[in-house]
Amino acid sequence: MPRVYLAGPDVFLPDAAARAEALKLICARHGLTGVSPLDALAGESDWPTLSEAARIHRRNEAHMRGCAALIANLTPFRGPSADVGTAYEIGFMRALGRPVFGYATTARAFAARTREFLGAAAVLDPAGEWRDAHGMLVEDFGLFENLMLDCAILDSGGSLAIAELPAAQWTDLALFEDCARAAAMLLLDRATS
Amino acid sequence: MPRVYLAGPDVFLPDAAARAEALKLICARHGLTGVSPLDALAGESDWPTLSEAARIHRRNEAHMRGCAALIANLTPFRGPSADVGTAYEIGFMRALGRPVFGYATTARAFAARTREFLGAAAVLDPAGEWRDAHGMLVEDFGLFENLMLDCAILDSGGSLAIAELPAAQWTDLALFEDCARAAAMLLLDRATS
Repeated sequence: MPRVYLAGPDVFLPDAAARAEALKLICARHGLTGVSPLDALAGESDWPTLSEAARIHRRNEAHMRGCAALIANLTPFRGPSADVGTAYEIGFMRALGRPVFGYATTARAFAARTREFLGAAAVLDPAGEWRDAHGMLVEDFGLFENLMLDCAILDSGGSLAIAELPAAQWTDLALFEDCARAAAMLLLDRATS
Repeated sequence: MPRVYLAGPDVFLPDAAARAEALKLICARHGLTGVSPLDALAGESDWPTLSEAARIHRRNEAHMRGCAALIANLTPFRGPSADVGTAYEIGFMRALGRPVFGYATTARAFAARTREFLGAAAVLDPAGEWRDAHGMLVEDFGLFENLMLDCAILDSGGSLAIAELPAAQWTDLALFEDCARAAAMLLLDRATS
């Protein structure tokens, strides 16, 4: 079965292992093997001198190289944007030419989320653009996230599944399943064409 | 001269073009050609049907593929972490096997910045780890950023230049120059070995 890397700040959840298992079950239903950042890697014990952080980093890069696609939880994490570790992993898989899918439990646009985050510090400049207290622009292309993330997903052949689900912010599984279904179809399509 | 991609939220500054020119001058002093995300790409006019966002995305990925290294401004941007577009670009260059350098005008550790961002919502759990209101862990490996960023930089052969410079948060050039100097040495080293 094609392997799919499960990116997201879900690894920080108190029930991270249970969440990973739930995502893997959904993957299996769609003919995919979900690979969690928490999964041990064969050969990891050969790195005894590495710090825990370096070991996790090396493991996750190896996991990604071994996966055919990536599904990322883009739910905003401690600010208006996705977790930076997740953004890093999207860029990594994108450079390898593999499809990237994203989901989030908010459907609000990046510009609206950023303005809300900035609060009274957001000001409209004479050109009609919003800027923060440092004069830095609020990116507004009508997209869900920073353009590098949105455009990478679409350009890679992947897709974005978003919905406003505040009560299920870190627990919803339906949006992830939309991505798993789409990933399975794309990978099957590419394998048979 | 080796080409180096200049990543960072600096593109959102009100004087983004002047900032890019200042960084390029420093690159030139160290025998490098700085490539800004703002630089037009030969052939860009062949993409008339692309949206502006898609054009910027495609341009920047092409710029990165044409660069030997990346220097990223990791100064926290609208939250405790770096800009997600920058994190994406670090992952992208890392997957291509190219060295990545980072600088920031704060020297405070990631865990301390995150706890400060969370404020009263940060609570110490019985295991002695900090968690947010959702029970999500505050990553604490004593690093400057999310481990994927820190470890990517070190593993790639790059380095991190950080200092507490709040008065020059988005204007300092000395830390960037530290990175340019290190990048020039590494690239020269690799070219001659």
